[in-house]
Amino acid sequence: AGITTLIAKGVYDAAFPLHDVLHEEWARYSAFYKYQPIDLVRKYFGEKIGLYFAWLGVYTQLLVPASIVGIIVFGYGVATVDTNIPSLEMCDERLNFTMCPLCDGACDFWQLSTACGTARASHLFDNPATVFFAIFMSLWAVLFLEHWKRRQISLSFSWDLTGIEDDEEHPRPKYETILLQKRQRKQKNKKTKKKKRIQLTWKDRLPGYCINVSSILFMFGLTFSAVFGVIIYRITVSALMAMSPDPETKSNVRVTVTATAVIINLVVILILDEIYGAVAVWLTELEIPKTETNFEERLILKAFLLKFMNAYAPIFYVAFFKGRFAGRPGSYVYVFNDYRMEECAPGGCLIELCIQLSIIMLGKQLIQNNIFEIGIPKLKKLVRTLKDKGGAEKEEEEERPPQQWNLDYALAPFEGLTPEYMEMIIQFGFVSLFVASFPLAPLFALLNNVIEIRLDAKKFVTELRRPVAARAKDIGIWYNILSGMGKFSVIINAFVISFTSDFIPRLVYQYMYSQSGTMHGFIDHTLSYFNVSNFKPGTAPQNSDHGDVTVCRYKDYREPPWAPDAYHFSKQYWCVLAARLAFVILFQNLVMFLSLVVAWVIPDIPKTIVEQLKREKKLLVDLFLREEKDKFQLIQSLFAKDAPVPLGSHVLDPAQRFPLPGRYSTLPQCATQATAADDDGGGGGGGGGPRARCRAASFSLYTRKVPLSPRNENSKHTAV
Amino acid sequence: AGITTLIAKGVYDAAFPLHDVLHEEWARYSAFYKYQPIDLVRKYFGEKIGLYFAWLGVYTQLLVPASIVGIIVFGYGVATVDTNIPSLEMCDERLNFTMCPLCDGACDFWQLSTACGTARASHLFDNPATVFFAIFMSLWAVLFLEHWKRRQISLSFSWDLTGIEDDEEHPRPKYETILLQKRQRKQKNKKTKKKKRIQLTWKDRLPGYCINVSSILFMFGLTFSAVFGVIIYRITVSALMAMSPDPETKSNVRVTVTATAVIINLVVILILDEIYGAVAVWLTELEIPKTETNFEERLILKAFLLKFMNAYAPIFYVAFFKGRFAGRPGSYVYVFNDYRMEECAPGGCLIELCIQLSIIMLGKQLIQNNIFEIGIPKLKKLVRTLKDKGGAEKEEEEERPPQQWNLDYALAPFEGLTPEYMEMIIQFGFVSLFVASFPLAPLFALLNNVIEIRLDAKKFVTELRRPVAARAKDIGIWYNILSGMGKFSVIINAFVISFTSDFIPRLVYQYMYSQSGTMHGFIDHTLSYFNVSNFKPGTAPQNSDHGDVTVCRYKDYREPPWAPDAYHFSKQYWCVLAARLAFVILFQNLVMFLSLVVAWVIPDIPKTIVEQLKREKKLLVDLFLREEKDKFQLIQSLFAKDAPVPLGSHVLDPAQRFPLPGRYSTLPQCATQATAADDDGGGGGGGGGPRARCRAASFSLYTRKVPLSPRNENSKHTAV
Repeated sequence: AGITTLIAKGVYDAAFPLHDVLHEEWARYSAFYKYQPIDLVRKYFGEKIGLYFAWLGVYTQLLVPASIVGIIVFGYGVATVDTNIPSLEMCDERLNFTMCPLCDGACDFWQLSTACGTARASHLFDNPATVFFAIFMSLWAVLFLEHWKRRQISLSFSWDLTGIEDDEEHPRPKYETILLQKRQRKQKNKKTKKKKRIQLTWKDRLPGYCINVSSILFMFGLTFSAVFGVIIYRITVSALMAMSPDPETKSNVRVTVTATAVIINLVVILILDEIYGAVAVWLTELEIPKTETNFEERLILKAFLLKFMNAYAPIFYVAFFKGRFAGRPGSYVYVFNDYRMEECAPGGCLIELCIQLSIIMLGKQLIQNNIFEIGIPKLKKLVRTLKDKGGAEKEEEEERPPQQWNLDYALAPFEGLTPEYMEMIIQFGFVSLFVASFPLAPLFALLNNVIEIRLDAKKFVTELRRPVAARAKDIGIWYNILSGMGKFSVIINAFVISFTSDFIPRLVYQYMYSQSGTMHGFIDHTLSYFNVSNFKPGTAPQNSDHGDVTVCRYKDYREPPWAPDAYHFSKQYWCVLAARLAFVILFQNLVMFLSLVVAWVIPDIPKTIVEQLKREKKLLVDLFLREEKDKFQLIQSLFAKDAPVPLGSHVLDPAQRFPLPGRYSTLPQCATQATAADDDGGGGGGGGGPRARCRAASFSLYTRKVPLSPRNENSKHTAV
Repeated sequence: AGITTLIAKGVYDAAFPLHDVLHEEWARYSAFYKYQPIDLVRKYFGEKIGLYFAWLGVYTQLLVPASIVGIIVFGYGVATVDTNIPSLEMCDERLNFTMCPLCDGACDFWQLSTACGTARASHLFDNPATVFFAIFMSLWAVLFLEHWKRRQISLSFSWDLTGIEDDEEHPRPKYETILLQKRQRKQKNKKTKKKKRIQLTWKDRLPGYCINVSSILFMFGLTFSAVFGVIIYRITVSALMAMSPDPETKSNVRVTVTATAVIINLVVILILDEIYGAVAVWLTELEIPKTETNFEERLILKAFLLKFMNAYAPIFYVAFFKGRFAGRPGSYVYVFNDYRMEECAPGGCLIELCIQLSIIMLGKQLIQNNIFEIGIPKLKKLVRTLKDKGGAEKEEEEERPPQQWNLDYALAPFEGLTPEYMEMIIQFGFVSLFVASFPLAPLFALLNNVIEIRLDAKKFVTELRRPVAARAKDIGIWYNILSGMGKFSVIINAFVISFTSDFIPRLVYQYMYSQSGTMHGFIDHTLSYFNVSNFKPGTAPQNSDHGDVTVCRYKDYREPPWAPDAYHFSKQYWCVLAARLAFVILFQNLVMFLSLVVAWVIPDIPKTIVEQLKREKKLLVDLFLREEKDKFQLIQSLFAKDAPVPLGSHVLDPAQRFPLPGRYSTLPQCATQATAADDDGGGGGGGGGPRARCRAASFSLYTRKVPLSPRNENSKHTAV
């Protein structure tokens, strides 16, 4: 019966299970350049998972222009590095800047030109194009959200989700258990007052909330101490390595320390990520949320907060704090009385931020993709099959081929979309929050996502048990998180450009201090003077190769030793600071204004859908008017003839009562949907023929969940 | 028949026309302390006007707490004026600050202690409490908008507006005429291609847009030149008065000039306001908008832009530009080669801003209320009756008492709500935009609005022809304008506090420069030195009473004459500037964050309504299920007996088919609404009994405009 009969009759040539279609057409890496068959995904996995993949698709698609612009910006940096005056000046040995030593005692004075490499590298990421790129990416984030809004509305229109209302959900079992326990306790104590319904009050939840707040604070503390631990590691190891007599070790201090420290950071982040995920679930259970939706929302918020802090704390440190508390020669800041606070590389903190960002972003993506998403499920599967074999060996004698459910049992259960979304949101943070310092981030995100889509598809089709299809009309709280991150990114980028990069000092020098109006002399201007005789006892270089040094230079805006207020912040310092702050205000307000304009210019609902809604509404009104007229005629005829009209014949002829399908098929959306549905080749799910579905969809736009929809009435009448 | 019969039968004691009820209970100044009978207003004037008065009510109500806090803040200023060190130092004659002359040649050096009055006055508005008040008022604006959102949803629930969709409107007659003309032109030219529908394209609208843009730019220019004209007036008159030999004139320069200039400003604003209103209408007509709604939206935006610029340009000038381009002693900035740019009063620009704000706000309100809203309509009415008398004298012989329509004809026609809203929005600007400089603004707004409500009510009830009732589900574009102003006010207040007031310089002095950590010495710190020998020839005072002055002081942060870079901005200048800018960033982001939190904490839909919606939905589903069952039984019985059931009797008994009212009256909203409707005493409008209305309201929440609502079906059936 069913599809096989139809094939036998020659109505269809062949039929394929939807699972196989998806496996062939979607869950393959070689299909990476194709659009996803979102409608089929929705049919097989339900709306919730369909929306996730649609969202991921839109995000990946929009990463393409961002990547291209990012590559151009990076290319601009590469192209201009040889004509860039500040980095040329830094590399110029003739200028002969003798810098103050980088550590106490053991380190010698050094020539600025030895830091030529980092200066050139930092120009790649710290050039005027970056400012443009930061503005571009802020607008890109707004554009992405607006675009997704439109896509979501299109999808909910074609998937018939517009009418969904939040039905009252059943309470979670855990909630009910606790409620029951409370009721029993109460009933034991007082047998009167039966009428009062017992509910969970804030008193029942208070301990949970307290544990929540304290745990979250504790975990924040944990994250910060992890970051601080890595700082200490860096400080101590570089101090120890600097003291080593081996000149090879000495010369590689910075590279070795930075690389190992970032890797330690990465490992800590990955470990804490897993721990925080588990802790967030435990904490949310303690809050006793009433419904599953409630539970999910609280869990997501908590997990997001923790994982966001975890992933970004070291990056924030490098961007905004590193090197700002190091003090100055003669008055360094020490931790544990012995170790000097770390400074940024001579090329500026931006290059370090860039290294940190790229390693954490790439490392997180590669490791999470490979180990956590492919490796661990495979391992779990292996363990399960091994375990099963022990029990199965006894039954193997029956030699029956394993049933589908046996095979499916070996797969991992579906554990919600939260981890998938979370991974992407944290990635969105790398793409938007610090994009000013790393214009290649969108490119790396794009490369990752092209793989991620197919990886997730593979996982859903082959690695997991088929999840129970769930409806959802939007991506829920994730949209708010995305939009919040977009807003946050504006201010973060403003601060990165004005405080982490050297963009503002360069501008200030060019327009306020430069005699020639060019950048010549910028490096000299950024370096302050230090009189070697002002070194505290024991901190001066013990054996210097640099002959007779009386004055060394360091990067800061401070008064020279011969000024009356020596080593105080100079006028330039305050001037540059004011310019930096003014830039933040300008940038933030300009970008916010442009974002508002972009959001205002792009209508939320696509024009085609607006028109279609209007047309459908008109048709619907016509239909109801005609039906009313029919009813009226029927009743009139009953009274007029005073004899039963063959009512059944009237009612039973749906073609006469509902001459709609013909007219409806003139609607483009219905027509295309019908075609699409036919093309599906009888895939699973999706009740009713294309026509019925189409009609139902358009009705439900207006009547919502009211059961008396004409379709119901119709089916009931014809059933008589 | 009708109500009179019912009164005769004793069902009601008496009946009053709604007009009289409103006249007695609402349109009276003595009712100012009462809540407005919004439901009656809506019944008589329709939803659109009802929403206006509801909005005005909410706004006025929320002004109460703002006024109270404003009074407290002002009170704090009054209470601390005698202990405030900076103003005490300014008044202290012993400190003996000899200030540089305020004009070239004619003016003498002067003692700072003579400006004691303004120093004390400016402390009233420039104290730490103002910062708190600015934050408070920004949050207040968010709170107001959130509160209004809730009120609007409550109203649209009880007024049955939730289901309204934007029906396709008819095109405006003007649009149709132009379209027709274009069609005729085309048809003359080409007789083929009949199929192509002719529409107005951008080409037809281009001239209109061009005129629009250029006119708006021209009017912006007009506004700016008006502001500039007043500046020139101030500069020249004060220069001329300073040169007069009469000492009385000399001493009153500042007061006279400020007062007359502000009044000129006010008059210009009032005149341009009227002109801009008319020009905006003309410009919008040129754009050929398709529908009336479209027309209204464009008109409002344009009128708002023009009137906003007009009202606020002089205030912006005083707040952010006045005194910043005046130069310094020895190097003043001159306009027309002769007149020095004006400076702020010695007490700071804030006190001038405060005077400007209060005079424009109060003057605008008083004059617009009295002359434009009361005087001119009365005058128009007078003119009309005088005109009519000429024509009417001939017919007077018939000696019929004048009919109601004759009386109504004498009234002014209703010209839309735009002017009413506009007045309030501009006032909202005074309350929110510059509130940091004038904490009494909410109080004045409150006093104005208490009168405004009754004044508008009186106007609508007695002065205007009764407007055609129009439906509207919200206040439309005004909400967006309000919300935009709320956002804009955050940044404006941040700048007022940090740049116009002396709050930041005081903080910087106290924490960075003060030796004792107190404010002692602040005035000395803000005054720079000027060597009298550096005066340009002819600009030094011609005959000085101040004996032997070698150095005079002026308010700025510049290097002293004996420094190597004399008269350049000093380090303090940049330091204070950085602090000011940092404060702007901090303030803006803090307030924006708090606003988000406030908007997030307050749910958009009141909880009672959410619950009611749920309950009604359940009832509705029950009802439809029961009806379906009835229908099914009816059809079954028809077939079973093969004889006509007395169908009519079944259908004609609504109580049996719809046993709802009993259940529905358990709904609190319906119950109260029914009571309210009974209390109305049969007012005009409002079709159907309270029950029917109540039922209809709850249905329309789900079925929207679909004609097949049970009520329709019912009435049709009973009509058979």
